[in-house]
Amino acid sequence: MKGIGASPGIAIGKVLVKEETKVEVEKKSIEDTKAEIERLQEARERSKEQIEKLYNHALENIGKDEAKIFEAHMLILDDPEYFGQVENKIKSENANAEWALKTVTDTFVAMFENMDNEYMRERAADIKDVSGRVLKLLLGIDTTDFSNLDEEVIIVAKDLTPSDTAQMDKEKVIGFVTEIGGRTSHSAIMARTLEIPAVVGVEGILEAAQNGDTIVFDGDEGEVYVNPEEKVIEGYEDKKKKYEEFKEKLEELKGAKSVTKDGVEVELVANIGTPKDVEGVIRNDGEGIGLYRTEFLYMDRDKLPTEDEQFEAYKEVVEKLEGKPVVIRTLDIGGDKELPYLDLPEEMNPFLGYRAIRLCLDKTDIFKTQLRALLRASAYGNLKIMFPMISSIAEVRQAKKILEEVKEELRSENVEFDDNIEVGMMIEIPAAAVMSDLFAKEVDFFSIGTNDLIQYTTAVDRMNQKISYLYSQFHPALLRLVKQVIDNAHKEGIWVGMCGEAAGDPKLIPVLLGMGLDEFSMSPISILRARWIIRNTSKEEMEEMVNKVLNMATAEEVEKFIDENISVL
Amino acid sequence: MKGIGASPGIAIGKVLVKEETKVEVEKKSIEDTKAEIERLQEARERSKEQIEKLYNHALENIGKDEAKIFEAHMLILDDPEYFGQVENKIKSENANAEWALKTVTDTFVAMFENMDNEYMRERAADIKDVSGRVLKLLLGIDTTDFSNLDEEVIIVAKDLTPSDTAQMDKEKVIGFVTEIGGRTSHSAIMARTLEIPAVVGVEGILEAAQNGDTIVFDGDEGEVYVNPEEKVIEGYEDKKKKYEEFKEKLEELKGAKSVTKDGVEVELVANIGTPKDVEGVIRNDGEGIGLYRTEFLYMDRDKLPTEDEQFEAYKEVVEKLEGKPVVIRTLDIGGDKELPYLDLPEEMNPFLGYRAIRLCLDKTDIFKTQLRALLRASAYGNLKIMFPMISSIAEVRQAKKILEEVKEELRSENVEFDDNIEVGMMIEIPAAAVMSDLFAKEVDFFSIGTNDLIQYTTAVDRMNQKISYLYSQFHPALLRLVKQVIDNAHKEGIWVGMCGEAAGDPKLIPVLLGMGLDEFSMSPISILRARWIIRNTSKEEMEEMVNKVLNMATAEEVEKFIDENISVL
Repeated sequence: MKGIGASPGIAIGKVLVKEETKVEVEKKSIEDTKAEIERLQEARERSKEQIEKLYNHALENIGKDEAKIFEAHMLILDDPEYFGQVENKIKSENANAEWALKTVTDTFVAMFENMDNEYMRERAADIKDVSGRVLKLLLGIDTTDFSNLDEEVIIVAKDLTPSDTAQMDKEKVIGFVTEIGGRTSHSAIMARTLEIPAVVGVEGILEAAQNGDTIVFDGDEGEVYVNPEEKVIEGYEDKKKKYEEFKEKLEELKGAKSVTKDGVEVELVANIGTPKDVEGVIRNDGEGIGLYRTEFLYMDRDKLPTEDEQFEAYKEVVEKLEGKPVVIRTLDIGGDKELPYLDLPEEMNPFLGYRAIRLCLDKTDIFKTQLRALLRASAYGNLKIMFPMISSIAEVRQAKKILEEVKEELRSENVEFDDNIEVGMMIEIPAAAVMSDLFAKEVDFFSIGTNDLIQYTTAVDRMNQKISYLYSQFHPALLRLVKQVIDNAHKEGIWVGMCGEAAGDPKLIPVLLGMGLDEFSMSPISILRARWIIRNTSKEEMEEMVNKVLNMATAEEVEKFIDENISVL
Repeated sequence: MKGIGASPGIAIGKVLVKEETKVEVEKKSIEDTKAEIERLQEARERSKEQIEKLYNHALENIGKDEAKIFEAHMLILDDPEYFGQVENKIKSENANAEWALKTVTDTFVAMFENMDNEYMRERAADIKDVSGRVLKLLLGIDTTDFSNLDEEVIIVAKDLTPSDTAQMDKEKVIGFVTEIGGRTSHSAIMARTLEIPAVVGVEGILEAAQNGDTIVFDGDEGEVYVNPEEKVIEGYEDKKKKYEEFKEKLEELKGAKSVTKDGVEVELVANIGTPKDVEGVIRNDGEGIGLYRTEFLYMDRDKLPTEDEQFEAYKEVVEKLEGKPVVIRTLDIGGDKELPYLDLPEEMNPFLGYRAIRLCLDKTDIFKTQLRALLRASAYGNLKIMFPMISSIAEVRQAKKILEEVKEELRSENVEFDDNIEVGMMIEIPAAAVMSDLFAKEVDFFSIGTNDLIQYTTAVDRMNQKISYLYSQFHPALLRLVKQVIDNAHKEGIWVGMCGEAAGDPKLIPVLLGMGLDEFSMSPISILRARWIIRNTSKEEMEEMVNKVLNMATAEEVEKFIDENISVL
């Protein structure tokens, strides 16, 4: 069976199926509605206790972000509007608590799910998770407990909720396979955080696998076998051993240069989202930061971050990097994120909407505050500024003009900053790639954002599962644009990095080396593997391969050719 | 003042402001709720009479489509759920009808407006229109009446509703200017249908213009003057005269060839949406159909169109064109349209979603039915098939494979069709333009869809007003891609058309001639003007201009250069 590789590693073990308890709720007539409301109260109290435990377990074993989900669950349990409506239903219809809860929940969930807003749709998932818990307590149904396992298992489930993953015992859960979900679903992200191998989106796995079955899979490739022949198991055991040996070998590359067999040195840097991610960059020997996303500073709060708050965050990162380059991207946010204090318009196609630099050039006060903070932080290390979502030369000129104004302000205030600060732009919109010869005259560097560039080049929303087969980093149109961008940049003497997923893809790294990419930016955990690949690749040999790849017709053809002729892993 | 030119022509006349009656509704306590409900009933009845009149007026004077809006309004007036809730409000709260109506309406409107679905949002506008009418009748407020004017006027309004435009007396309303709206808003479309000059999106016009003021504007350029100096009026009178003379000159071009000064002949064809549009094509001397959108066959109905229904529609068009080429595009529809019988998923970014060829290659039964109908109709004229939204070579190969299967089926059934039927594809996704050298080996022709190509190349939703300044057919990235597509097509010996707005743009036609475009497809009313431009342009001279344009940095630069050096109008 085949799914989407969500977290790398080989898993071999026994299946534990997460039962999807079908909760059937009927309306019953209740005489003593007061007692019924008390019963509901009690279930809420017990739910709170459970969630509190999960919160503490998540905080200790996983991290703040995961724990935060349970804070949200607590808020739902405390929501007087929500449970007030349930109690009203019990009273006004003389109904049982289960039916009242289900009826009210269905309305709320439908309302949130219908909203054109990712954040609100996530709230629907939270409400379902919480109400499911209360409902099971009301009905006396046991919830699956992954925290108290006797032996090592591989969990097979339709999907995993935050409540499921938070209680997982990492020592016992050695992998999981889910029927739904993509690379960016909650389960997939958790698997990578916990470093548990996982495959998601495996259709039919619940019918194929039962408790106690043997299951083996490769979290990179996405292949899953249920009760395979002994030979397959042996093959995977071998693969697993090699994988672990390879991981040890990578450790030895810490401190080594990122240089090809024929002596071409490139820069191997990391993508981060918050200052606390720096730790992982240093642990994995990143040579700098190629993309520091600043959105986190603006999210989950009720007003804009101040200049000083931003300054502190940027300063912390550049100082910790001790002179290594730190590319900080200015605000890249739009209508698909809930920022109540910005009052962004609801849009039919937020990915093609008012966001990132478009928003910043419109709301220049927000932009200037960020630029002031960035410039001030530039006095403390090697900071570079990068503008996202540039689609026209007019925009980059306007952004640079505002930056100059801010510099002038700081000068007149005698505030220190790096006057030679490098200014770059993302190449993530096809127009920018097509016009890169002229853009290269305007900035000091490019960073190719492949995730968005693929999305716009192929007109495929990368979050949309239904058409995900069309979204591929091996699409020859993408590779042609990348080559064109690198050539145009080098003609003007500027450097080019890449900060999309493709930069960390083991199969694409040799191709990108052959194209002349100067900087590779990826998640910290991928850095050492990338270094190993670079050190085992000859740039000159790759240059020839690139010409072949650029004349291929389909993504499948490209990937096959790489597998057969290029891949060094 | 400057707005968006929505319908061509010069208007000079007196202002009539459409008053925005501020309807203030207070809650009042009502003793006799039965009488209050009767009062509501009466207002509903009178609304029905008014709407019926509008319906008949629209049917006679404008067309079926416009009239249909009032059928929808009638349905709302008859909706028992909606008015049932209003009556309940009156009874349960002892409230006045106005307040009850407003309260219920606000809930409905908020619900529909929040839906991620254009169709539903349009319903919100309908409900507002209808409830506004009933409310005004309840309050005894007169609604503006445009049907009974004494003198010629230019209407100035915040926006115009279907109720407004349907009652307009074309003899008296010689133009209109609105504060909101874009080129595709209801008011703009109606202006073009009625052939009344109009400018929309003129900020502040309601403050600047009062009843009786003199107003002049140009519906092409979007410039509006209120009480200008005599000199300005004279200038516009002159312009108006020239415009009318030019229109007469165009009439003389019927029957003439579409050939440049240096003897290069191109094809000048039309975009249509339904068989009834053919009449306009013939009246304007179109040389064929460059884009026949087949969506209308699938919309506003509750089940899929049958093969025979489609066959009849296609056959009607090819027969009426008497051997002239008819390019029919296969279904190009997605989640932003309401097709209840298809049960399409709601998507966060429908323009980057599951639609057009993606849907057809998934639901092959729908696709095959359409292909059968198309092939059968091909026996009756010069029909060519075109696939929309191709982003990968795999898709075009798969579509052709299915077409071959359908041909085989028809052969085995001894059904006649044109076995040499030409098969082409839209170039509307950047990946297709970038890979056009290889696509040109797969199909018989290309048609460049500039509307979508601009949208994806610049990552700008063309419906999104907030960022419309970034959407431009003069964007040099678009022009570079167009040039690349034409060159690649000609290298493989296939022809290239264009069916986006750019193909009919007077400023761009000479540039496209210089690039070597073979076929120009546009709305029928633009054909004669395009022929005039072509006959006054030298292709060879333009070839030099093209090289200059392709090295320009911004859309503004390109447009200015064209205005100063190329434009022949």
